[in-house]
Amino acid sequence: MTQKASRIVLASRPAGNAELDNFRLDQVVMPKLKDGEFLARTIWLSLDPYMRGRMNDAKSYSAPVELGDTMEGGCVAEIINSNNKDYAIGDIVVARLGWATHGISNGVGVQKINPSIAPISTSVGILGMPGLTAWVALNDILKGKKGETIVVSAATGAVGGLVGQLAKLKGMRVIGVAGGPAKTKFAIEELGYDICIDHKSLDVKELRVRLSAASPDGIHCYFENVGGKTLEAILPLMNTFGRIAVCGMIAWYSPKGMENASPIPVAWGAILRQRLRVCGFIIFDHYDRMEEFHKEVAPLVSNGKIKYKETISEGLESAPQSFLNLLEGKNFGKQLVRIGHDPR
Amino acid sequence: MTQKASRIVLASRPAGNAELDNFRLDQVVMPKLKDGEFLARTIWLSLDPYMRGRMNDAKSYSAPVELGDTMEGGCVAEIINSNNKDYAIGDIVVARLGWATHGISNGVGVQKINPSIAPISTSVGILGMPGLTAWVALNDILKGKKGETIVVSAATGAVGGLVGQLAKLKGMRVIGVAGGPAKTKFAIEELGYDICIDHKSLDVKELRVRLSAASPDGIHCYFENVGGKTLEAILPLMNTFGRIAVCGMIAWYSPKGMENASPIPVAWGAILRQRLRVCGFIIFDHYDRMEEFHKEVAPLVSNGKIKYKETISEGLESAPQSFLNLLEGKNFGKQLVRIGHDPR
Repeated sequence: MTQKASRIVLASRPAGNAELDNFRLDQVVMPKLKDGEFLARTIWLSLDPYMRGRMNDAKSYSAPVELGDTMEGGCVAEIINSNNKDYAIGDIVVARLGWATHGISNGVGVQKINPSIAPISTSVGILGMPGLTAWVALNDILKGKKGETIVVSAATGAVGGLVGQLAKLKGMRVIGVAGGPAKTKFAIEELGYDICIDHKSLDVKELRVRLSAASPDGIHCYFENVGGKTLEAILPLMNTFGRIAVCGMIAWYSPKGMENASPIPVAWGAILRQRLRVCGFIIFDHYDRMEEFHKEVAPLVSNGKIKYKETISEGLESAPQSFLNLLEGKNFGKQLVRIGHDPR
Repeated sequence: MTQKASRIVLASRPAGNAELDNFRLDQVVMPKLKDGEFLARTIWLSLDPYMRGRMNDAKSYSAPVELGDTMEGGCVAEIINSNNKDYAIGDIVVARLGWATHGISNGVGVQKINPSIAPISTSVGILGMPGLTAWVALNDILKGKKGETIVVSAATGAVGGLVGQLAKLKGMRVIGVAGGPAKTKFAIEELGYDICIDHKSLDVKELRVRLSAASPDGIHCYFENVGGKTLEAILPLMNTFGRIAVCGMIAWYSPKGMENASPIPVAWGAILRQRLRVCGFIIFDHYDRMEEFHKEVAPLVSNGKIKYKETISEGLESAPQSFLNLLEGKNFGKQLVRIGHDPR
């Protein structure tokens, strides 16, 4: 018996914003199953913002979808034929079958699920990749603590909705940002956010004023999933030693979003794609390390293994010009001003 | 006996770049020592880039210098009179006496130094605040490891010069960026850098090409002390899970530097000033946490303590439009496409 399937392929790459013309529905006949493969019918296809990146022919954290290929995506599916002893007809699995009614898999990366625990759609939602994202962000990346304030962007989204609820369960003050009154109402009444701000009619400054008023203790953690004006509004409000989990930046995924972009996306894109850990630090916070530093480095300076260079200007009155030189990089090594006689 | 002193005060705040007119030299008579105070003569004044920030009337990590006040700064000084039993005449100390020939202190924040260990000027240099900065950045912030590649900006500076040498001692590949052939030569021949690139005649793209060629294994760590084109050139070259210690951004401290600024300074300034920890993360790196996530969250979903919302569109052919809606934020909660019948 041959199995026909429908699928949606990438017909063209977006020139600017993604459009319907970039997709094409077609029909295929599924090939015969090889040894170790199974055939599954898709029940649920998950749509996620990361897919926008796969439509571009650009380096990101995974390869682009090729033109004419099925759009990628995670699915909940039921196995309807199997040449793989680990998977039986009727099994429900999570598999990356893509935007298609049917798919074939050899089982690699496939996860069998128990339909009695929760609705199977949750396997690609609250108990699947988006849920794990929320939980890892809050616990492993942000390390949110009781009593701290967290702002959650896309507050009712697949990921944000769980970040906010988990943060609330931890005893944090939880402030959401979402688009439109239906979402903000849901965030407060159903998800338990302390406050949820509708960003739709606010510009950066207005949004910042609202966020500031909602955060009497400042902002300790920010779950960043949007970029754009929300990020721009929050950055100055972040507390010292604040933590930001950069999970996405949907506002900047399309050229339209970049038209009025704040001057941030270049750095932010690198931080996200390369999973950078970027730490601002001010040495005055670290003076408890002075003793250990001296223990290690002072002998190296004494024995000449570590060298240093000084640029010396003479007399207090030379300080301003020397300082201007320093700002221009005209000094060489450590800039000092000799104010008095050093007999040693 | 009254002690006269010269000092340099902040005469006006810079309108744009700092200029000599912003400073004024004047004379004062030092007040009589109170109980617990000492009088010291400045031997060495340290000039550091952070002082530029103190000239502005803007929030940073410490308060601005008031107009008419002595410019702030760390000094090595000799005590010449004392009403404090912990400090004797002749003692050499590090104290924040400012840009002045003499200063009075009650001993708070003062550090006594032993002149027999090293030249006393090193107490505000390689063995003082700049040295500690380098050591903390490499060990505590960047956690640089043998075999990794580090780029050091301002490679021969008071801080960078030690970062590079300590990194070399650890067995890292060390690439410097500095301004002018004298500095790059010194970095390689004296400090032991593997390569040092002169940024002076290079634009962002050329600098990136040179850095890329110098880093066959990519860049694991970046000691960031400059901002500007060096940061812009390096960001795309950072390896996945790379670390950046944001210590300064001298290229952006003055309006002149901002004229051709890359679209980064807003975010970078917040990261630095607020000592933020900003982590890009991609959930696919964290799937080992799935089991623990399920253990904690699946029961909360089952018993309704955690809620979730789904937006469902019907049929494969609805996927493209639903996806475009998702990019516009028109979905509400998790976006799913029902491809097949879900009997449960």
